[in-house]
Amino acid sequence: MKPIDFRSDTVTKPTAAMRRAMAEADVGDDIYGEDPTVRRLEERIAEVLGLPAALYVPSGTQANQIAMGLHCRQGDEVIAEANSHIFHYESGALSGLWGVQPAPLPGSHGLVSAEQVTAAVRTDFVGPRSRLLSLENTHNRSGGRVWPLALFRSVVEAGRKAGLAVHLDGARLFNAAVATGMPASAWASLTDSTAVCFSKGLGAPVGSAILGSREFIEEARRLRKRLGGAMRQVGILAAGALYALEHNVERLAEDHVHARRLAAGLAELPGVTVVPGQVETNMVVAEFPLPVREMLGKLASHGVLAGSTGTGPHTVRLVTHLDVSSADIDEGLTRIRRALAG
Amino acid sequence: MKPIDFRSDTVTKPTAAMRRAMAEADVGDDIYGEDPTVRRLEERIAEVLGLPAALYVPSGTQANQIAMGLHCRQGDEVIAEANSHIFHYESGALSGLWGVQPAPLPGSHGLVSAEQVTAAVRTDFVGPRSRLLSLENTHNRSGGRVWPLALFRSVVEAGRKAGLAVHLDGARLFNAAVATGMPASAWASLTDSTAVCFSKGLGAPVGSAILGSREFIEEARRLRKRLGGAMRQVGILAAGALYALEHNVERLAEDHVHARRLAAGLAELPGVTVVPGQVETNMVVAEFPLPVREMLGKLASHGVLAGSTGTGPHTVRLVTHLDVSSADIDEGLTRIRRALAG
Amino acid sequence: MKPIDFRSDTVTKPTAAMRRAMAEADVGDDIYGEDPTVRRLEERIAEVLGLPAALYVPSGTQANQIAMGLHCRQGDEVIAEANSHIFHYESGALSGLWGVQPAPLPGSHGLVSAEQVTAAVRTDFVGPRSRLLSLENTHNRSGGRVWPLALFRSVVEAGRKAGLAVHLDGARLFNAAVATGMPASAWASLTDSTAVCFSKGLGAPVGSAILGSREFIEEARRLRKRLGGAMRQVGILAAGALYALEHNVERLAEDHVHARRLAAGLAELPGVTVVPGQVETNMVVAEFPLPVREMLGKLASHGVLAGSTGTGPHTVRLVTHLDVSSADIDEGLTRIRRALAG
Amino acid sequence: MKPIDFRSDTVTKPTAAMRRAMAEADVGDDIYGEDPTVRRLEERIAEVLGLPAALYVPSGTQANQIAMGLHCRQGDEVIAEANSHIFHYESGALSGLWGVQPAPLPGSHGLVSAEQVTAAVRTDFVGPRSRLLSLENTHNRSGGRVWPLALFRSVVEAGRKAGLAVHLDGARLFNAAVATGMPASAWASLTDSTAVCFSKGLGAPVGSAILGSREFIEEARRLRKRLGGAMRQVGILAAGALYALEHNVERLAEDHVHARRLAAGLAELPGVTVVPGQVETNMVVAEFPLPVREMLGKLASHGVLAGSTGTGPHTVRLVTHLDVSSADIDEGLTRIRRALAG
Repeated sequence: MKPIDFRSDTVTKPTAAMRRAMAEADVGDDIYGEDPTVRRLEERIAEVLGLPAALYVPSGTQANQIAMGLHCRQGDEVIAEANSHIFHYESGALSGLWGVQPAPLPGSHGLVSAEQVTAAVRTDFVGPRSRLLSLENTHNRSGGRVWPLALFRSVVEAGRKAGLAVHLDGARLFNAAVATGMPASAWASLTDSTAVCFSKGLGAPVGSAILGSREFIEEARRLRKRLGGAMRQVGILAAGALYALEHNVERLAEDHVHARRLAAGLAELPGVTVVPGQVETNMVVAEFPLPVREMLGKLASHGVLAGSTGTGPHTVRLVTHLDVSSADIDEGLTRIRRALAG
Repeated sequence: MKPIDFRSDTVTKPTAAMRRAMAEADVGDDIYGEDPTVRRLEERIAEVLGLPAALYVPSGTQANQIAMGLHCRQGDEVIAEANSHIFHYESGALSGLWGVQPAPLPGSHGLVSAEQVTAAVRTDFVGPRSRLLSLENTHNRSGGRVWPLALFRSVVEAGRKAGLAVHLDGARLFNAAVATGMPASAWASLTDSTAVCFSKGLGAPVGSAILGSREFIEEARRLRKRLGGAMRQVGILAAGALYALEHNVERLAEDHVHARRLAAGLAELPGVTVVPGQVETNMVVAEFPLPVREMLGKLASHGVLAGSTGTGPHTVRLVTHLDVSSADIDEGLTRIRRALAG
Repeated sequence: MKPIDFRSDTVTKPTAAMRRAMAEADVGDDIYGEDPTVRRLEERIAEVLGLPAALYVPSGTQANQIAMGLHCRQGDEVIAEANSHIFHYESGALSGLWGVQPAPLPGSHGLVSAEQVTAAVRTDFVGPRSRLLSLENTHNRSGGRVWPLALFRSVVEAGRKAGLAVHLDGARLFNAAVATGMPASAWASLTDSTAVCFSKGLGAPVGSAILGSREFIEEARRLRKRLGGAMRQVGILAAGALYALEHNVERLAEDHVHARRLAAGLAELPGVTVVPGQVETNMVVAEFPLPVREMLGKLASHGVLAGSTGTGPHTVRLVTHLDVSSADIDEGLTRIRRALAG
Repeated sequence: MKPIDFRSDTVTKPTAAMRRAMAEADVGDDIYGEDPTVRRLEERIAEVLGLPAALYVPSGTQANQIAMGLHCRQGDEVIAEANSHIFHYESGALSGLWGVQPAPLPGSHGLVSAEQVTAAVRTDFVGPRSRLLSLENTHNRSGGRVWPLALFRSVVEAGRKAGLAVHLDGARLFNAAVATGMPASAWASLTDSTAVCFSKGLGAPVGSAILGSREFIEEARRLRKRLGGAMRQVGILAAGALYALEHNVERLAEDHVHARRLAAGLAELPGVTVVPGQVETNMVVAEFPLPVREMLGKLASHGVLAGSTGTGPHTVRLVTHLDVSSADIDEGLTRIRRALAG
């Protein structure tokens, strides 16, 4: 029985067409700035997000961390919602690489208010120095929640008023765009820097971009080298990302439909708690009857792979993506029902 | 009108007797390990706290941070109550100097439970690595709260079971000892490292110590040099600390009596909220009717200096110490009443 | 006129056969450890180099820096020849990421002696702590010089005797192997960690590996994540590296023949100084009559791209590789002669 | 037999008059900026060195390192003579605290040329970024050598032209001033930041200052807190420094006379090599017949304490200071002669 893989939208494999685009990519030594495919991808994503310049990097973690390293100095503080990816899933990079301290704000579904941001800014010299506001859209640990643009704008303004730079962790920004019908640039263009991923819902095998002003991206190039993220004929990968950008954005809508259908099905299962109305993009966060580890094991033995958010002892996360079909949703629900019964 | 200074117990000035002890101190070059007074102080404090060895350092911040730097590596995480001094009052040193990330636990009066510690330990490789448990006794931002020994022990055990080292920020550990009638070693001897200050309630002008195993202190010597805390004929200051240790520990009881009396008086003032039963040592945390900054200004103009905890918009902190007499408490209350009326 | 590109062996483009291997690669999410091609590459390179385990990373810089970060702590010192790649070409990563200080030894053609290593080890606590010995084979800035195995062994032994860990920057280790007829493992197996590149002489588009003990590689996985070098379906790239390892090692001998022929030709040109006997692998370092920047511009305008070593005002570096044919050497020499005459 | 202590000018003990000044010092909580003696010292030293502002810190290492931390960012490079104190005697702080890499220049007696500085500045993005030029006057490891002002000025200009900030490690700047008859401000006022010590030749027990613009010193206050160098009623120590500044500058001339006399005496001893003409201030660096460690042991057993520069296997350093009298020089020479004969 081939498992249905709801662990993450990172598990998708490149399609034949995408592989073909990669195999035929025109390449060059990107450390010398000579890879035409990389350059095309960087120009394209900058255009799409409404920011002046972009740099291709191997991962979302590196995209975010280059921004952290450029905006901040050692001993600075980054204000962000407490469950932010940059605090929990980047192997301690924020402090470990840059000497920057998190200022975690308790959020509601990953969102914080302008008032919270303002109150979190420090003014004395005995604490760390408040330097950067970082926002995540969609918000992973809260189950792919979307930042309403008006709220986003007000929070950005509060940050700027306090002298903070503003970064957007947009690993899944296109999900927010598709879910709301607004362009991804609506959020990104309000920021000083934005990170996006081509390897999650968009289905490219590898890669992300960091965007900002031209000067910012020049400096980003230096940090990318320092982090060991500068690569040679990497146009091979960039071609996959370009393909994804051209073909796989609109289809995120399907993943969202699938996620809502999955949530609706889960809501009817005994012992599972989920609020389908809270499913805004491609993630379903649900409370299951068994402790997470045990529950995931049981689901796996019934042919369903799922993950956790790390936010509760019974909280399970299921993600829809390019490699989960409509039929997989039905079959997945059947298997989950069986696992719960078993 | 000479102001009554409730800002902190750090403001005390050395008495004539203490000055004499300092002026007559036998000294040597402590970087060569040749200052007999420093050596005497280090041996004495190690004996008092029941730990193998001690090192004299210029401040509580340096004492804590040497411990952070020795226990942790870049990308590690320190689990501690969210309002800990190491997170808020050490100028971002935890992340800024060592690349270590805070894992803040919401506490109750500065205390956390063994369960909270256990749940906070990370087991995956995508987050920072949980490395150290740090506890603060008395807990400054919560108003000088004491860690009950049984709770302290259970939390330490939870930390050790999870493979964490345990540090005690005992800047005001002697207040906890005097308040409970237990020796300071009761807490300190359970830890891998303990920091204590001679310059707060004990009334010495400058200085702290970091304590731990002999090997730990050998390495601490290296970090003290790196931080620029290694000093030459510093026995002058150590003599003040020794004097404080001999003469000023028991008298902390007076400060505690004063604090309770101050709290009781404040509780009767209109617009002030304080729970006198929560005053366990030499600090009074109270809600005042005006926003902190404004309130402190008003109090100052009436001859009362107070501070803030940074934990609430109206939260004022008042600290009793060697240079606040019983009469000062009465006069202070009179002035505060006048300020509130004015 | 298509320029002949002697700048570096990093500029090679994947061949049709290599592209095919990449397009057909079996892939999975490598952050979950599920990419079969990556796993196969890691096992293969570990076998080839005689070390227990390997980890695929995006660049030689990241391979080296993961080793630096694992062997060292902040305030430590790395002993290495003064012209080492880790000091000059990794964007300050050694100090910037890990807080580690270089201890540069003046070398002869990139080589240092056991006596130099022994003398460089510090024993006091007022300096940085000597922690790691790092050797580079072949030595880039010295023109691709090979470490004679006996000297290498004696230097490694001196390092170990002083308690140092030993790292090998083997970005071009296969050149040393082919040049001497010894297996690459002869050097690598003597070390605690070795870095190798698939993207230089071997001709893969992207990628390197870091090797060491199993425990070391487990920790390396954590640092790779922190640096943003963990990628998803990266088997696409790993397939290129596997292909390179199978098909492009022995052919490095051609590059070496080309380099020697290039050197011999250069030696006859007026105003150029080069010692052909010093050309041991695929690099030629020569003194040219004009200052480097000017000279490189002139050569470029005559259809020859070259680079610099940064070690002298007139020192030019020319590198042979997969995309430089025997005819290119002849044509290159003709063009260089023309440039010098022009 | 009381040993004659030539190890360092750091070993001096405060005189009765200095102790009296310290005992009577007016003090306050310096972290609140309320210590009048500290403030007086800071104003005085700023005036003397011709720089806008100063901050009292516990050591020369901290003074230097605060400057490093303020001028540089992680991944930057500090250009300085290879034997600089900041590279060898600050426990790896340069890299360990700030992530900054040394760019060591081979010097002549601790001096470097403008050309060397210019050539050392990097322009590419694959290396660390050249940020700061640091000069040491007098130069410790070279035996207290003085920077001729014209050379100093030309080197500073070369640094500025390349966009570097300029720091002066003036731990023994007053020795340079007294030796040349020029004011200390002649060098200091040319720099962006200068560090000076009160605890070496000047004879105060503890303390140094870092100087620069007002904004620089405001930021320095923050770093001093982070490093744990902010102290409370430290006017006690500052009073010693003020006393030293008033009484002990001119008398450095005596130490210089003593050093020259010591060198002349040593030059006549069999097996000792020293160039008396190279003794410019209070240090004598001489080659002795036995290996350093052995030689120092032998000298000690004959009642003479000396030290090493770490620059040669037979190189011994002898330092004159406040606690070495003219008679001690004679007696010292007698004892050394005896040790060499024994």
